[in-house]
Amino acid sequence: MAVFLAKGTRDALPEQMYRRLAVIGRLRAVFARFGFAPLDTPAFERIETLTGKYGDEGAKLIFKILKRGKGGERGETDLALRYDLTVPLARVIAMNNQLRMPFKRYQVAPVWRADRPAKGRFREFVQCDIDIVGAPGLLADAECLAVLCAGFDDLGLAGRYTIKLNDRRILRAMASAVGARDETALLVAIDKVDKIGREGVSKELAAQGLLSEQIERLWSLLEVGEDNAATLSALAEALPAADDAVSTLRGVLVAAEQMGADIDRIRVEPSLARGLDYYTGPVFEVVSDDVAIGSIAGGGRYDELIGMFSGRDIPAVGVAFGLDRILVVLDELDRVPVSSEATQVFVTVYDAESRGYSATVAHALRNAGVRVELYLGESKLNKQFKLANARKYPWIVITGPSERESSQVALKDMRTGEQRTCTWTEAADIVLA
Amino acid sequence: MAVFLAKGTRDALPEQMYRRLAVIGRLRAVFARFGFAPLDTPAFERIETLTGKYGDEGAKLIFKILKRGKGGERGETDLALRYDLTVPLARVIAMNNQLRMPFKRYQVAPVWRADRPAKGRFREFVQCDIDIVGAPGLLADAECLAVLCAGFDDLGLAGRYTIKLNDRRILRAMASAVGARDETALLVAIDKVDKIGREGVSKELAAQGLLSEQIERLWSLLEVGEDNAATLSALAEALPAADDAVSTLRGVLVAAEQMGADIDRIRVEPSLARGLDYYTGPVFEVVSDDVAIGSIAGGGRYDELIGMFSGRDIPAVGVAFGLDRILVVLDELDRVPVSSEATQVFVTVYDAESRGYSATVAHALRNAGVRVELYLGESKLNKQFKLANARKYPWIVITGPSERESSQVALKDMRTGEQRTCTWTEAADIVLA
Repeated sequence: MAVFLAKGTRDALPEQMYRRLAVIGRLRAVFARFGFAPLDTPAFERIETLTGKYGDEGAKLIFKILKRGKGGERGETDLALRYDLTVPLARVIAMNNQLRMPFKRYQVAPVWRADRPAKGRFREFVQCDIDIVGAPGLLADAECLAVLCAGFDDLGLAGRYTIKLNDRRILRAMASAVGARDETALLVAIDKVDKIGREGVSKELAAQGLLSEQIERLWSLLEVGEDNAATLSALAEALPAADDAVSTLRGVLVAAEQMGADIDRIRVEPSLARGLDYYTGPVFEVVSDDVAIGSIAGGGRYDELIGMFSGRDIPAVGVAFGLDRILVVLDELDRVPVSSEATQVFVTVYDAESRGYSATVAHALRNAGVRVELYLGESKLNKQFKLANARKYPWIVITGPSERESSQVALKDMRTGEQRTCTWTEAADIVLA
Repeated sequence: MAVFLAKGTRDALPEQMYRRLAVIGRLRAVFARFGFAPLDTPAFERIETLTGKYGDEGAKLIFKILKRGKGGERGETDLALRYDLTVPLARVIAMNNQLRMPFKRYQVAPVWRADRPAKGRFREFVQCDIDIVGAPGLLADAECLAVLCAGFDDLGLAGRYTIKLNDRRILRAMASAVGARDETALLVAIDKVDKIGREGVSKELAAQGLLSEQIERLWSLLEVGEDNAATLSALAEALPAADDAVSTLRGVLVAAEQMGADIDRIRVEPSLARGLDYYTGPVFEVVSDDVAIGSIAGGGRYDELIGMFSGRDIPAVGVAFGLDRILVVLDELDRVPVSSEATQVFVTVYDAESRGYSATVAHALRNAGVRVELYLGESKLNKQFKLANARKYPWIVITGPSERESSQVALKDMRTGEQRTCTWTEAADIVLA
């Protein structure tokens, strides 16, 4: 009987899982160091909780769950798989008045979207979000930048990424300064500059009805200065309406540096819009300096969303790390962190008689803290070696008759081929060294 | 606007998550020490992958997902949420011929069942499974017992649990020896002895048509001896048909001890049936010696299930840890492991002027490896103290004008109330000590 995965989904086999868990582990350690607490929400929500939260496009992509019993037979639905981690967070905030603000949580969990599957686009993918809820001040935005730097630095990418920083209010001020009627359409066009270039964007703007002098004016406003200070000064001068935004960004940069952010990685980028409609203040996006794969993390301030169920504005700012893309970047740079879970030693079973001895050796090594696979099958030694090779285990233990007699083991380094005879304790020390 | 959770689901707020993650972390470390590799599968499968795998009762409990587009409008479904982690594992084995045997994986992931919600019964719950696929020999069963012991020992329950051990073939031999017509009904009745007592079981058996002498004979077979050796000898003598099973269990006990299992915790229990129909050999179940909450882990050998998609028998043996119940036991015994993620220090902000200094202090402490929440709100110090109290943070840092001037901090131990003035480095050392 042939079986298949559901379209657009994938398994993560051990090799992928070790990598994924290693990256998540590093990020979780960073989140914890910054005082973010873990949160988990159910995979599905009542359908009315999600309805109307993701626009018309999003609505089509929500997986709906059939009612059990009679209603289901009529095709009725009452539940839906979460589409992101933000609406569930808003629900948690609304339902838990006892939570004190600011509330900082991280959540690393899958979300589901019935998107057309494509290269790198799946119907189930893990989101890795941190959010700070209930902190209106710029310290919170700055902390997001500091977490981004700490995260990518700890993933071994120190000095190899750029954080683009902007403020939605700057773009709004621009749209109004050039006299654009449809602000959102303008933002959408500008956001494409990395993809379709300046000319492409200009064409789109012209199609939106902007005159060439308006477009010229826009490009002059989008000009990046020699450094962040210059860019911000130019913006302040050209856009009095963006005053608040400019001084926010100035404050964010100062505070982020105090919090340990690598300020040299942060570049104020007036054209950065970020797709989502809901941002209200600073926005940021991280790209790899080595691998052109688009943004590997991003986020911003969205002060009007978290309160959607609470009936009041609740300030919030957050970051999403793009796990899949980060793994691609780390892979290309050969910097995927080594898993602290991967098996270190494979203890072979020489023959039926030596099973007990092999088991005892495996136990002794585990007791010393070594991660050990004891061979549990019934094949001969040469097949066991093949297994160890296929799994790329760094060490093999052999317990032949002579080793057994002397209560020793033969320890083989699979990377060098070197083999030595030693006691269990020595073997553990060598492996853990 | 009032919002609610979907029926039978729950959020895990930080306090619960720290506990859950701490337990999962301990267990994952044990799994890794025994060479189990992580695996992840999608939340939903094609509906035909799950159909017919869980009996009539199970079929009703599967959450089905509506097709997108036209089919969905007609109420058609094509996907379903996974009901357990075992059928997906069987699918992975069938789809990945390159995986070498024995294949040992663990998976800690939610499953979904549209069960009637009740105390302790949820529609979404995390399963924590290890399975050894492709190892027919008793070493694999023994390893499961060794993992159970290592798991509960490392969770701080050493000496406080009992592992009941039996073999399905012993129960079958009994059913046949007493002349029961319906073997499954007999097993189901026997399995209830802990719940309804010997008398209750006898009544059920009588209702099944067993004569009182058959029932007497059954009870004599179910008798537990003074120790495992005595129980096994008695079984071997009374049930020649159970010969293989008895010698398997003898071998399992010897090997488990060699692998480090706490053999004193393991009790051969001829009445242990375990509900599921699919077990074919040794079965085991763990109960707390302190908290009467039913089994907190269990498993067994099921040689006919994993091959369901592959068209051949593939031997398998596995264990499921009952996370929710384990947490209840640890909680009652006050032994929930301390999270290695929980925030250690809350850095307060004395006034607007000292924001920068507080940020710098937070950064310095984080750099030293301390987990720090920097206050990001705009409330006064007394409100900040309340926040720290509510979150039960062990340490608070205060950065008043005098500390700021001397580049020091006031470090307060929230458990003792003791407060001292020191440098950042000293503060980090004290917290990490």
